[in-house]
Amino acid sequence: MKVGMCMFLWTTSVSKKHEALLRDIKATGFDGVEIPVFVGAPDDYKKLGEMLDRIGLERTAVSAMGDPAMNLISPDAATRKAGIDYMKWAIDCSAALGAKTLSGPLHSTLGAFSGSGPTSAEKKRSVASQRAIGDHAGKKGVTIGLEALNRFECYLVNTMADLCEHIDAIDRPHIKAMYDTFHANIEEADPIGAYTKHRRNVVHIHISENDRGVPGRGNIPWKETFAAIRKSGYDDWLTIEAFGRSLKDLAAATKVWRDFAESPEAVYREGYRHIRNGWKRAA
Amino acid sequence: MKVGMCMFLWTTSVSKKHEALLRDIKATGFDGVEIPVFVGAPDDYKKLGEMLDRIGLERTAVSAMGDPAMNLISPDAATRKAGIDYMKWAIDCSAALGAKTLSGPLHSTLGAFSGSGPTSAEKKRSVASQRAIGDHAGKKGVTIGLEALNRFECYLVNTMADLCEHIDAIDRPHIKAMYDTFHANIEEADPIGAYTKHRRNVVHIHISENDRGVPGRGNIPWKETFAAIRKSGYDDWLTIEAFGRSLKDLAAATKVWRDFAESPEAVYREGYRHIRNGWKRAA
Repeated sequence: MKVGMCMFLWTTSVSKKHEALLRDIKATGFDGVEIPVFVGAPDDYKKLGEMLDRIGLERTAVSAMGDPAMNLISPDAATRKAGIDYMKWAIDCSAALGAKTLSGPLHSTLGAFSGSGPTSAEKKRSVASQRAIGDHAGKKGVTIGLEALNRFECYLVNTMADLCEHIDAIDRPHIKAMYDTFHANIEEADPIGAYTKHRRNVVHIHISENDRGVPGRGNIPWKETFAAIRKSGYDDWLTIEAFGRSLKDLAAATKVWRDFAESPEAVYREGYRHIRNGWKRAA
Repeated sequence: MKVGMCMFLWTTSVSKKHEALLRDIKATGFDGVEIPVFVGAPDDYKKLGEMLDRIGLERTAVSAMGDPAMNLISPDAATRKAGIDYMKWAIDCSAALGAKTLSGPLHSTLGAFSGSGPTSAEKKRSVASQRAIGDHAGKKGVTIGLEALNRFECYLVNTMADLCEHIDAIDRPHIKAMYDTFHANIEEADPIGAYTKHRRNVVHIHISENDRGVPGRGNIPWKETFAAIRKSGYDDWLTIEAFGRSLKDLAAATKVWRDFAESPEAVYREGYRHIRNGWKRAA
């Protein structure tokens, strides 16, 4: 198992200026970081990857689509194409970065609602979009970890059951699932069972406290969660995802209106120990 | 302790045509129902109260403000006045209904966001609005139970700590707090501790599963929750709040995109037994 830290806590665009922070994350013990992919070109991510190599951090990638002008489930072909083009670009950046997975709510536009549940036409269009994306991801050696988000952030897939039924319909080896403890806590009657039942599709895990703050300080049943993950044979990333108010746009998108920790250091240092100790105890 | 059922599962406007359902709710064992107050006049609620008297159901009231043209924290005086006028009307309807409490997110407009956290000016305007509302509520013998909502539905108060600090600032005996298990599960690092710590302000409790479905089938730690409530000496309403897709507008407002139960009957019959048995075991 590898422990990662998502850089969303500080930025949506990691660069040379974050080197000291990245070195401290490495010194804390992390195996890698999760790099937001929102702007720039593959070459920028290649250079970032080289810096991470020098620091000694592995990496995963994360993205999202917040612009309704790109939506993979839209009835409008040009809107779907804009989404597919974005995903191909994000896959190219992830590959240049040296990331094997690109995760996030990469199935529909974040915060875009129709006012009712997903239609069969929307799901059908999603399958077609994801197949095109999956074929490109396969060529680049990147696996997509689609994320079920809570009902307030998307409507296409809110539970692991919905997500994995959809992944089965997509039927592409490079389109898989992410499990996120924050969203599961809101949407799953049995959050741990939802992981276990859908384990075969899970390629990435976000460790996120129920209030999005310091992992271990809140309400997620961590002991049972780590035990289930370890027992399942999962041996990939456990990546901390936490949010703060430092980025105004991201705070508005994630609806973060207060501080959940006294400092970012508390989140990654205490969060790191929480995961390592929790994993050890789950042996 | 009294067990209630919120009528939101079926309607935002209870009337004569719900009589058979109300009789079945009574036959199930409920002490009362929670009546949505959104439309009509005090006289309509007086008639509804008389029907509930005949059936033998006590009642509480619930409301919300979804229209940005009425917002109790707005910088615009006319917008605040529209909110205060709405609340005075809702209080009059609740009094006519025979409800002693009127609960809900009655502090700011549902789903209205500024893009950042509450400002001190917004809180100050809220205090002034709530004092006017509280004075009217006192005259009518109705107590307001303000509700802390999760971050995706409002930004003024998301936790019991924020809510109760605000209630202390308002300083009116008829402006108090509601505790809701669904929202606490998302926002409170320690949901049960948040209840216990702020117990003195709590005049109403919503029993709502973590997925908003059948109470007892999900992830809320019910045993510990009932134990804390009973131990605190609370002897008022435990009211089931669950949502479905039958009301298109309400489903869109509460972001309900799927069914959480096989039927409304499952919610109120199984939910009722869950509360009675949980309370008994907590003795």
